[in-house]
Amino acid sequence: MTKRAGQTGEDEIIARYFRPLAKHPAALGLIDDCAALAVPPGSELVLKTDAIVGGVHFFPDDPADKVAQKALRVNLSDLAAKGAKPEGFLLALALPKEIEANWLKAFARGLGKDAEAFGCPLLGGDTDRTPGPVTIAITAIGTLPRGSMVLRSGAQPDDRVFVTGTIGDAALGLVLRQDAAAAARWGLSRRQAKHLNERYLVPQPRNTIAEALRQHASAAMDVSDGLVGDFTKLCAASGVSAEIEVGATQIPLSVAAFHAVTAEPAILERVLTGGDDYEIVCTVPPKNRGWFKAAVAKTGVPLTEIGVVTKGTASPRFLDASGKTMSFKKLSFSHF
Amino acid sequence: MTKRAGQTGEDEIIARYFRPLAKHPAALGLIDDCAALAVPPGSELVLKTDAIVGGVHFFPDDPADKVAQKALRVNLSDLAAKGAKPEGFLLALALPKEIEANWLKAFARGLGKDAEAFGCPLLGGDTDRTPGPVTIAITAIGTLPRGSMVLRSGAQPDDRVFVTGTIGDAALGLVLRQDAAAAARWGLSRRQAKHLNERYLVPQPRNTIAEALRQHASAAMDVSDGLVGDFTKLCAASGVSAEIEVGATQIPLSVAAFHAVTAEPAILERVLTGGDDYEIVCTVPPKNRGWFKAAVAKTGVPLTEIGVVTKGTASPRFLDASGKTMSFKKLSFSHF
Repeated sequence: MTKRAGQTGEDEIIARYFRPLAKHPAALGLIDDCAALAVPPGSELVLKTDAIVGGVHFFPDDPADKVAQKALRVNLSDLAAKGAKPEGFLLALALPKEIEANWLKAFARGLGKDAEAFGCPLLGGDTDRTPGPVTIAITAIGTLPRGSMVLRSGAQPDDRVFVTGTIGDAALGLVLRQDAAAAARWGLSRRQAKHLNERYLVPQPRNTIAEALRQHASAAMDVSDGLVGDFTKLCAASGVSAEIEVGATQIPLSVAAFHAVTAEPAILERVLTGGDDYEIVCTVPPKNRGWFKAAVAKTGVPLTEIGVVTKGTASPRFLDASGKTMSFKKLSFSHF
Repeated sequence: MTKRAGQTGEDEIIARYFRPLAKHPAALGLIDDCAALAVPPGSELVLKTDAIVGGVHFFPDDPADKVAQKALRVNLSDLAAKGAKPEGFLLALALPKEIEANWLKAFARGLGKDAEAFGCPLLGGDTDRTPGPVTIAITAIGTLPRGSMVLRSGAQPDDRVFVTGTIGDAALGLVLRQDAAAAARWGLSRRQAKHLNERYLVPQPRNTIAEALRQHASAAMDVSDGLVGDFTKLCAASGVSAEIEVGATQIPLSVAAFHAVTAEPAILERVLTGGDDYEIVCTVPPKNRGWFKAAVAKTGVPLTEIGVVTKGTASPRFLDASGKTMSFKKLSFSHF
């Protein structure tokens, strides 16, 4: 690639790796200062920024395409939980000197693949040097009809509590990365271990159920820091309590996670509080329950009813398989 | 502050330092997953993300309130250049362990002050740990009437070229930080040295002229990587050339910068290509020239006419005081 007039190293990186992704007219080919995005009339913006940092949210040797996918998907997951349609995203990428062309090429490939798959094009960005690890801050922009965002604060007593997919896979995948003996201890097949690893590497945001949430849910959030802590926050925001069944036979677990919990019952706490699930927990009024289940069934996203919202402002109770209230050392995963 | 149900360390940082800044209803008090922003009917979004990194864009010992102001202002500067009105911003903040409460308190104070001053409230954010330096990625959201964004690509032959404020102060301020002898060599008073230092620490984005640009300019961009390189990009985007007068007596210089250039003529190259000005360079059709100057004069922002757009796609010519074409080792500042 020849240098164009006035081009710097940053411009070359943008031209080579990111301009091919910026097909949306709002991106102006990444040659202007800003993106210019038209918003559908009558709609409201749903805005989210979330960053991932090498050595904190991913391992420095994780494949670059998966890192890119994770960076975008953690933001898409929030849009999904709010019932919003993705419109596009902005990328602020800080790169250490060691990063090579192959890494960037794979990163851009992963990003482009997901931008396409989720209908969320790259609209603009910024590339910087850092003496620290790769740091990827993405801002996702979504829209929905004005006033229809699904809040954390809408849960009412008697609403049913649902969660998508399976819980704990990513947290167990992280254990596998840190503890080489864990897979054997849990009696996992190679395929099962791979499943957990992949769930840690690349979450599966539930954007296909955004519309069902907007139509039927009273409150929702994505599970990023552990089901127990996150749902506790939802109850606090709504001014309600709840009873949730989280025993190993009640909470939705993958086969791999069920193996782990059976072999090492104490790991259930990690499953419930470990984070990185990027599933959705939501509350649904009883009258909408059937409609919601039917709407989600149409998308193919697994859905499990795990409890009921109750009156009061006490912390929600998390019950094991015998109906006893569980207690946890800490409710959420936190880097702080 | 007592921990609320489900609160993590990150939640406490948000509650203590950032929630007080999130007064706009769209921010939902930072307790939900996303912000929900209503957009004025008939308007278009103008979106920008720009990150600053400790040890790259600022010094680790710079005052935290100034760091926060710089982080927000580099984004506001882009909105200004495009003619957009700021609506709010999102913050992705990565913090090393060493950061203490006092730093965060000052950071939030600086951020809140500018959010207020520029009418650009905090709408949402993300706080992360990093093993690297403080990294601040801000996404600014602006609006303007649909289709009215001032592009880089609208310059036409015969348009006049204007630049706001003074050029080179921040680049010289950076030299002062790196070369203790420079202030004496340039014969600067303490006040003059302070002026250059402060221009490096905290830029002055030109949001007050956004409306004048939208009404009268054919193209504009903010000068972040040096006047010469940035204006060369504007010409390339517009498919035009230009003649620009950049001699020390022609380009707008502060008294401090004029001292520096007089004492050390070679430093003029640094002034013209050093970056961090956050002034606006724009082109204005001849028929709008008087109106534009009058509209900008009303805001009090200094404005200097520095050249004229010409036909052709050759790189613009930068002329010294004797009318000779200057050549530069490199056109722009770049960390890559």
